[in-house]
Amino acid sequence: MISPVEWKQGKIRLIDQTRLPQRLVYCSCNSAADVAKAIREMKVRGAPAIGVAAAFGVAREMMNSRARDYRRFRLEMDRAIRVLAASRPTAINLFWALARMRKTAEKNQGLPPERLKQVLLAEARSILEEDRSACRRMAISGAKLIKDGDAVLTHCNAGGLATTGIGTALGAIVRAREEGKRIAVFAGETRPLLQGARLTTWELRRQGIDVILICDNMAAALMRAGKISRVMTGADRIAANGDAANKIGTYGLAVLARAHRIPFHVLAPLSSFDFHLRSGEKIPIEERDGDEVRCFQGKWIAPRRVRVYNPAFDITPHRLISAIVTEYGIFRPPYSRSLARLKRAAEKGIRNR
Amino acid sequence: MISPVEWKQGKIRLIDQTRLPQRLVYCSCNSAADVAKAIREMKVRGAPAIGVAAAFGVAREMMNSRARDYRRFRLEMDRAIRVLAASRPTAINLFWALARMRKTAEKNQGLPPERLKQVLLAEARSILEEDRSACRRMAISGAKLIKDGDAVLTHCNAGGLATTGIGTALGAIVRAREEGKRIAVFAGETRPLLQGARLTTWELRRQGIDVILICDNMAAALMRAGKISRVMTGADRIAANGDAANKIGTYGLAVLARAHRIPFHVLAPLSSFDFHLRSGEKIPIEERDGDEVRCFQGKWIAPRRVRVYNPAFDITPHRLISAIVTEYGIFRPPYSRSLARLKRAAEKGIRNR
Repeated sequence: MISPVEWKQGKIRLIDQTRLPQRLVYCSCNSAADVAKAIREMKVRGAPAIGVAAAFGVAREMMNSRARDYRRFRLEMDRAIRVLAASRPTAINLFWALARMRKTAEKNQGLPPERLKQVLLAEARSILEEDRSACRRMAISGAKLIKDGDAVLTHCNAGGLATTGIGTALGAIVRAREEGKRIAVFAGETRPLLQGARLTTWELRRQGIDVILICDNMAAALMRAGKISRVMTGADRIAANGDAANKIGTYGLAVLARAHRIPFHVLAPLSSFDFHLRSGEKIPIEERDGDEVRCFQGKWIAPRRVRVYNPAFDITPHRLISAIVTEYGIFRPPYSRSLARLKRAAEKGIRNR
Repeated sequence: MISPVEWKQGKIRLIDQTRLPQRLVYCSCNSAADVAKAIREMKVRGAPAIGVAAAFGVAREMMNSRARDYRRFRLEMDRAIRVLAASRPTAINLFWALARMRKTAEKNQGLPPERLKQVLLAEARSILEEDRSACRRMAISGAKLIKDGDAVLTHCNAGGLATTGIGTALGAIVRAREEGKRIAVFAGETRPLLQGARLTTWELRRQGIDVILICDNMAAALMRAGKISRVMTGADRIAANGDAANKIGTYGLAVLARAHRIPFHVLAPLSSFDFHLRSGEKIPIEERDGDEVRCFQGKWIAPRRVRVYNPAFDITPHRLISAIVTEYGIFRPPYSRSLARLKRAAEKGIRNR
């Protein structure tokens, strides 16, 4: 299995996802600032993977610390957390992972700093392992939604490269295939950064799953021709009412799916939920540099000074989502009720931890 | 005014649109095969411009002819027409222009070949001039649909580069601006060949019209945010019931526009209508090489052997179109009735010619 984030000989090793599919190269991070930069530059991307990378970013940064007491240690750690929190605003997993690291430090503030460093590293490792296991459980539930003979359209990359496990949406597809279901997969290329064209196709082909690449604007015609039976995507943040932020273009696919009576499923682990937000309206949407649209790998596509609007995400309202799959199972509308159940189950899980 | 197709010193001069916006370079064509190649390679594109180029292709090819009688001349001409007709299947303007050239030859078969050559060249010139004038008249009608303060989304390039005049959809926008209306224009980049990013932005900026470039998958989020008040596109072929083939992605925009209660207008000259087809179902859709999606200007975006689906057009059913604008004015639903009126008006026009 590919792993976009690993802890290796005292360093964080990331797959540099900006170089795929041409080259599989790794980069290593030795501080919170290194990780923040890798997140901002999208060397590591995908909400769950970002969360794991950020947790290791805190742990690795604190290994550099010379603090001799908790107060000093905590000051340094809070600075590292701020650096990481400022990297990208939309995926909640980042803030969720940072909050967990902070709580771990608080709970263990009685320990000497050298010991606390070990506890933080162990916590980052747990976050990675839990993400891996969440993917597995999500895949089992998600695969139940997929029927033999389905043609599944996916957007962006919701696979192993976006998580530390087998992925969210792609995990379900891989699992359904393992169960012997015949599935066709269409991958939207996902402009501007082409995660679908570069990452999803690469990943699925490595796993021997046939995939057909399309431009994002071809999805509607495929749906009209009856060639898509299901849309499955990941999510970067899901509000309490089921509204889901995901890669730009997802909302359009959800509207198109509804218009063609095609089920639209979102797959995301608990760490992608933001129960503090009653709806998706308040989810902060990152706007990225216009050059991502204007030029590609150093080639100018458009006039250099043309104005560009480049939001990285959009929000799909819950009424367009047929089911939300998490490691706790499949959740159906009305989400205000079903996700409240998820929230209670999660709180219970956390108390028992 | 830019002119993508010109007759210059005995040659056909085309703007090589594959090189824009980086470089404004021309190429010249001296035979029907040259023009067919330029159409296939999309050096010249846009349904009306393709029609004009094809007409000149026939005229130029026949200037090379050494035929001494009509029968021989006609055999050569039919061969040239077949070469051009095989270039691209969807835009009806191509076949319309070729049919006009054939009819012109038939009507003048009594003339000696040397004289007939001049008549054919004159006919190609008329086709060019008529297209220019159709654009002007379309723009006047189209501008009436645009309100002060509108934000218009357009797709692909329906401008001066797609016609020999001021364009179809962009012509209306330019005209509305000249009338003093304040308009924001959003241009969808139009994957895979990026006509929106490369051509529409270039053209509008040259005319001092502010344009904001977006990726195709961003349109839905803009609509949801209330930032689009109108969608205007061209068309490559319109059936008798109003179903319209246009650049891939158009159908998706029409569905999205309807879902957000945004008017969706199609602008095209009479030469884009195919009254023989009762609906859009039978419009042949060109499928192009997968490498157009897999790589960009020699850079590989996706794994080299990944399967790709690359239709160049899609069909927007008439029920999603709020108005169709031609040089004969604005046509509204029910199109079976209003377009029948257009057909009668056109036939009368042709009889009077």
